[in-house]
Amino acid sequence: MSNELKTLTEQMLPAMNQEMKEVFQVNNAPTLFYGMMHYHMGWVDADMQPISIYAGKQIRPLMCMLACAAAGGDWQQAIPAAAAIEILHNFSLIHDDIEDNSPTRRNRETVWKLWGIPQAINAGDAMFAIAHLALNRLIERGVSADIVVQSLRRFDETCVRLTQGQQADMDFETRAQVSTDEYIDMITGKTAVLVSLSMELGALIAGADPATVKNYAQFGLDLGLAFQVIDDILGIWGDEAIIGKSASTDITTKKKTLPVLYGLAQSQELQTLYATAEPNQAFVQQVVTLLGENGADTYAKEKATSYSHSALQNIEGANPQGKAGQALYQLTDMLLKRDF
Amino acid sequence: MSNELKTLTEQMLPAMNQEMKEVFQVNNAPTLFYGMMHYHMGWVDADMQPISIYAGKQIRPLMCMLACAAAGGDWQQAIPAAAAIEILHNFSLIHDDIEDNSPTRRNRETVWKLWGIPQAINAGDAMFAIAHLALNRLIERGVSADIVVQSLRRFDETCVRLTQGQQADMDFETRAQVSTDEYIDMITGKTAVLVSLSMELGALIAGADPATVKNYAQFGLDLGLAFQVIDDILGIWGDEAIIGKSASTDITTKKKTLPVLYGLAQSQELQTLYATAEPNQAFVQQVVTLLGENGADTYAKEKATSYSHSALQNIEGANPQGKAGQALYQLTDMLLKRDF
Repeated sequence: MSNELKTLTEQMLPAMNQEMKEVFQVNNAPTLFYGMMHYHMGWVDADMQPISIYAGKQIRPLMCMLACAAAGGDWQQAIPAAAAIEILHNFSLIHDDIEDNSPTRRNRETVWKLWGIPQAINAGDAMFAIAHLALNRLIERGVSADIVVQSLRRFDETCVRLTQGQQADMDFETRAQVSTDEYIDMITGKTAVLVSLSMELGALIAGADPATVKNYAQFGLDLGLAFQVIDDILGIWGDEAIIGKSASTDITTKKKTLPVLYGLAQSQELQTLYATAEPNQAFVQQVVTLLGENGADTYAKEKATSYSHSALQNIEGANPQGKAGQALYQLTDMLLKRDF
Repeated sequence: MSNELKTLTEQMLPAMNQEMKEVFQVNNAPTLFYGMMHYHMGWVDADMQPISIYAGKQIRPLMCMLACAAAGGDWQQAIPAAAAIEILHNFSLIHDDIEDNSPTRRNRETVWKLWGIPQAINAGDAMFAIAHLALNRLIERGVSADIVVQSLRRFDETCVRLTQGQQADMDFETRAQVSTDEYIDMITGKTAVLVSLSMELGALIAGADPATVKNYAQFGLDLGLAFQVIDDILGIWGDEAIIGKSASTDITTKKKTLPVLYGLAQSQELQTLYATAEPNQAFVQQVVTLLGENGADTYAKEKATSYSHSALQNIEGANPQGKAGQALYQLTDMLLKRDF
């Protein structure tokens, strides 16, 4: 990790994690109500004993605080927004785990697996409300009420887009045909809008002008899309040593990622194969060959390049300043310059 | 229904329902995403064809608008808050129906029964976000940003209490012993805080001073508690012709309402009966006799009377004005003066 990015990450993320613990009342007498949420956050085990497990990369809240500083603001004013975004993300995981019937997450049992679906739905709802309360704390850091109201509105508009993306994703599983446009719209909701919100709120809290706020938001959106499409490419053609999982996983699970959807639209042969064949090693070979013959890799790489370029144009338009600005470029590099 | 209450209800509720339809984008091209929510609101059938079914009494949003007018405000400014509260209530029903495994609501299949649990969880989440967007529209009616931020904070603090109440209610089902204090705390969360919020936001939007806002909030809290305890009493000793269901339903389902919990704490005999007996007609007779012998009816009636008195003291302290003030008293009468 580059120097500015590392230094700022080590300052910002502990402050954000401290903020989250205050919002979740970690120091009050523990109850099962808060306990289930503390468990999900990785702060206690299933017996409510304190533990500390890896909380994930927390890239979204980091981006929010970096954007605030890079747009000329005080990043500490953006801590409540960063915490709100991280809590929102975690809330969505509680419900996603139920919706996807996932028994484990980060090598631990999921909330629904431990306490049942009804309690897990309710714990997620509580965490959704708490995410809003986290954001509301902007007012205590001297952010103007006008900007707090606007931040809350953008937060909830983003939540609607997130649930729209999730709805589409679930819907796609039951459908025979999904267009690449529908897929892009789905990942925009599921992935890109929350990255975009992180950047947007940071710039908004910094008091940036509307055009600059828009640049940060569009940068986040393009970055999120580029990142997801690169993931899709690596899920088929990636180097196993780098991505840490079998590169053919997305094929054996017949996951409808962007290259696959493009290939299916081009090739009747591929459609028949997906509809009928057992997903064994021969299947993987055939699919990869057909995707290549139909230009699915070229198409996806062009998409990824196009989103990456647009992201870079927008971050240049935003003209981020100082060490936080450098850190933003370094982070962008890390996320986009994965070999594909 | 008395004159002022009837007149104001006929003005206020249509305006609130119109506001909800705008927030839910009823006029845009229908999608399944919004369609599931429109179905739950009673605006379309399962095939997305427009229908109109009874939407419930909508007492909470009515109270919010009445409180605003009675506290000297313009009730139309409170429409976004009233809509937000009604949407919040409806969101909670979508998730409650999953949590309680209820296949029908208002004689129609529930959202999860029609579209499955994963989609229903997600539709509820979307509606929760939309409730916040509804409240955010206060700013467009000229309410100050400071009051909007405060309203949003109170809204989410209330949501946390709602989920706490729901968590406790589910927890009680698995527990052998529940104290009457724990029960009161549970119904405070499940029922009273939302009534309280309705009154509080109305007064807040009217620009009432903090003491008056507090009176309205406390009035709502006491009213909600009184209403629930009266419901508990009628569920055992009520007149079937008036309450519209068999008065012994709460006994045959072994529901742990306030009189029952009081009786269980007093009587070992009742405990044994609840733990072992088949809930037939003889069981109902025995339980009602034991509850009477142990003073459970007297205890519950004293509680109901005490909350009712406190409610009336607080509404008098709030000193509601004009026709809306009269309507508030009439509504209170309707809710509290049920024979018990």
